[in-house]
Parts: sequence; C-alpha cells; structure tokens
Amino acid sequence: MKPWSATILTLYPEMFPGPLGVSLAGEALRRGEWQLEARNIREHGIGRHRAVDDTPAGGGPGMVLRADVVAAAIDVASPPGDPRPRLLLSPRGRPLTQARVRELAAGPGLVALCGRFEGVDERVIAGRELEEVSVGDYVLSGGEIAAMIVLDAVVRLLPGVMGKQGSGIEESFEGGLLEYPHYTRPRDWEGRPIPPILTSGNHAAIATWRDAEARKVTADRRPDLAALHNEKS
Amino acid sequence: MKPWSATILTLYPEMFPGPLGVSLAGEALRRGEWQLEARNIREHGIGRHRAVDDTPAGGGPGMVLRADVVAAAIDVASPPGDPRPRLLLSPRGRPLTQARVRELAAGPGLVALCGRFEGVDERVIAGRELEEVSVGDYVLSGGEIAAMIVLDAVVRLLPGVMGKQGSGIEESFEGGLLEYPHYTRPRDWEGRPIPPILTSGNHAAIATWRDAEARKVTADRRPDLAALHNEKS
Repeated sequence: MKPWSATILTLYPEMFPGPLGVSLAGEALRRGEWQLEARNIREHGIGRHRAVDDTPAGGGPGMVLRADVVAAAIDVASPPGDPRPRLLLSPRGRPLTQARVRELAAGPGLVALCGRFEGVDERVIAGRELEEVSVGDYVLSGGEIAAMIVLDAVVRLLPGVMGKQGSGIEESFEGGLLEYPHYTRPRDWEGRPIPPILTSGNHAAIATWRDAEARKVTADRRPDLAALHNEKS
Repeated sequence: MKPWSATILTLYPEMFPGPLGVSLAGEALRRGEWQLEARNIREHGIGRHRAVDDTPAGGGPGMVLRADVVAAAIDVASPPGDPRPRLLLSPRGRPLTQARVRELAAGPGLVALCGRFEGVDERVIAGRELEEVSVGDYVLSGGEIAAMIVLDAVVRLLPGVMGKQGSGIEESFEGGLLEYPHYTRPRDWEGRPIPPILTSGNHAAIATWRDAEARKVTADRRPDLAALHNEKS
C-alpha cells in the first residue's frame, strides 16, 4: 500500500519538514511510513520576477494570491484523479476538529495550500475545490505553521507512528470533555500531595473522581463544550 | 528597551526556531527585534537517565511530566521577578484568541512549556501559575508546534516585523466576522469574472457588498461567531 502522502504548496518550502522532521513524526517520515513534499508556488509565478500576487480588486490593504498561479501549482502537484483532499489553511475556514483529523488520517493523504493571510483569489478556491480549514481564531503570518498543525495531528494517528502512547487522552477529548488532571511521583511535592483517592487502589472511585474533575474543568474553561456534552448525554 | 523575548521549555529544543527562522519572523529574529531561546527540560531530569516523566497516579495510559522536573526547568528559565507570563500549551487550556495574542505582543515576552499530550503533573500548573492555552480542538503529539502558532501570531504584531501588511484582515477578523472574498487580476479566469462591482470604482457600493459577503460566509461557516456578532451589534 502507498504510504499516506502530503504535498504542501507554499512560498516557503524550506520551512518543511521543520518540526515534523523531529521526534516520532520525523522517525516515521524517515522509515517511509508517511511522505512529505513541499513545493514552491513561485515556480508558477508570472514574468521575470515570478509574481504570485497582485493588489485586491476593489481596493484594500495587502496582496492577494493570483488564481492562475495557484491553479498552475495545484494542477502540477495534484493532477485530476489525485484522490487526496485539497486544503487551504485560512482563518476563514471551518475549524479543524479531531473528527476531521481522523478522516484525513484514514485517507490517502492531503494537499495543503498555505495561504498568505491577505487571502487567495476566491475563484481558485471554487475552481479547484479547496476545503478552507482554520486551526483557530487568531491571525498567522501565513498558513505554513497551520499546515504543520494539521500534519502533526494526522500523522500521530497513522499506524505505527506513535504505538500505544496517549490513546487515553484522545478518547477522553473526543468524548467531549477536557481531560481530568494528571499526577505522578513524587507523592508529595512542595507540600502538595497527590489526591489520596488516586493512590487508594479503588478503581471505581478513581474513575468517578476523574469524571467529576473532567466535568468541572470543562464547565470552567469551555462552557461551549460542556453544553454540547450535556445535550448529547 | 529590551526586545520581546520568548523562552520555550521542551524536550525537543532542536525544533526551534524551525519555521520561525524563515520569512519575516526569521528576519526580525536576526535583526534582534525579538528573541527566542529553547531550553531542554531533560537537563533537569532525574538520575542517570535524566527521567522527566513517570506513570500516572491512579493508572491509565501514557506518561506524565513530573512536577519537580518541570518546576526546576521553569525556575532556571524564569526566576522569580521575571515579568513574562508562563504558558502551558495543552488541549485542556482556554482557547487562544486574537485578543490574548495582542496582549502578549504588548508585554515583555512569554515563557512556554510544551506539554506532552499525556499531560503535566497538575501540581506544577498550580505551583508555578501556568496559564493553560489551547490552539484548537484537536490532539497534537506535543506542544511544540502549538507554541510556534502562538509565537507566529504574536511576532507579526511586534513593531517593525510586518510593516503595514495585512492590517486589513486583522481588523476585519477582530470585528467578529470572517473576511469577505478576495479577487485580483486577471479580470477573467477560466470563465470566472471578478464580480463587476469590485471594478466599478464605487467605493460605498464595494464596502456594502463586502460587508454582506462577510456576513454570508460567517453565517455559513461559523454560526457561533455570527451569533456573537449579532449580539454585539
């Protein structure tokens, strides 16, 4: 089977693999358990200066990535028949969720266009069926680190990458609540003991305590998630 | 004045500056307009193997970063009197917002502890007053790329880093709506014209059209933001 494969379209291909070349994701990349290719949009730029952007129609600040340039980059990197979804990282996108991450991990890979925050010509978003994805409600200098977020979240779910590490928190997070608090040795630290229930050996009581703590922290920090969770249950 | 200064506590200091060493953020780093230091938590590990983690009290998968090890790393990197806020990147945190990004950019810098997703002993979060911050509702292999997200969002707001680029979208985004669609040359692309209103020269009509488009895309993709925006106005 062909390994899961990502193609990144960016003005800064030298940013990749960057942090994804380190740690478990990097080791898996070197073992060929996933593939990563970063391509420079500027190769498809126009004229002697390989221009990729132009001023916004109708006025306004900043520059806009040209539809023709972006389409040329996409058509070479992801020709018709490429089954991989095409993402555009953008603060205008639908928020990335763990459910979408899981779908991406179950598929053949992805193509990611790293937007400049001023924007990409809307016509290429429609004309090349780009899925606009946002990693959060803040403004970045470009889509590159956002693409790394998507890749890191996906790659850790690929078979063989992480082993059994951390399956616990994921289940919990996907259950719609934030994680309960964690403790480990030493039993006493700066006068702060581990909550005695956790060292009681009473597994049912531990599970009940953790569930209550998860509800408490979720209600405190994420009333939006708590409301959703209560609706479901 | 001392430049804005970030200290990252991580098990993978070699990931930094990574993508932050490229492009405008990287140029500003080399000009000394901000500072970045990545420190290895493992330097404070315990015993011959410099252990930094241990199994969770009460059972469960994964490993937990030890309070004593993390506290030692923090106390060296950010001694008492350091005015910088201390962030812990974690899916349990409060979601990062552009408002918090702006506050961080206006301050002296930040200290960021990159959690492993299994978690950090809760007692050091309380004992060292860590502010838990989440960049989105997905699970990462660690906090490093999340820390890069925070830094990228903050650094682009520092004086001298970006110039005038993109002030437009930020205002718009902070206004509580997603951005209106962008267009640029060519006027016609694959049979798709730029909406004629944008080339009409009628600035009032363009502003009205853009506002309506922003409302439409926000209502479609982010009913949560649209509801908040309607409450405010």
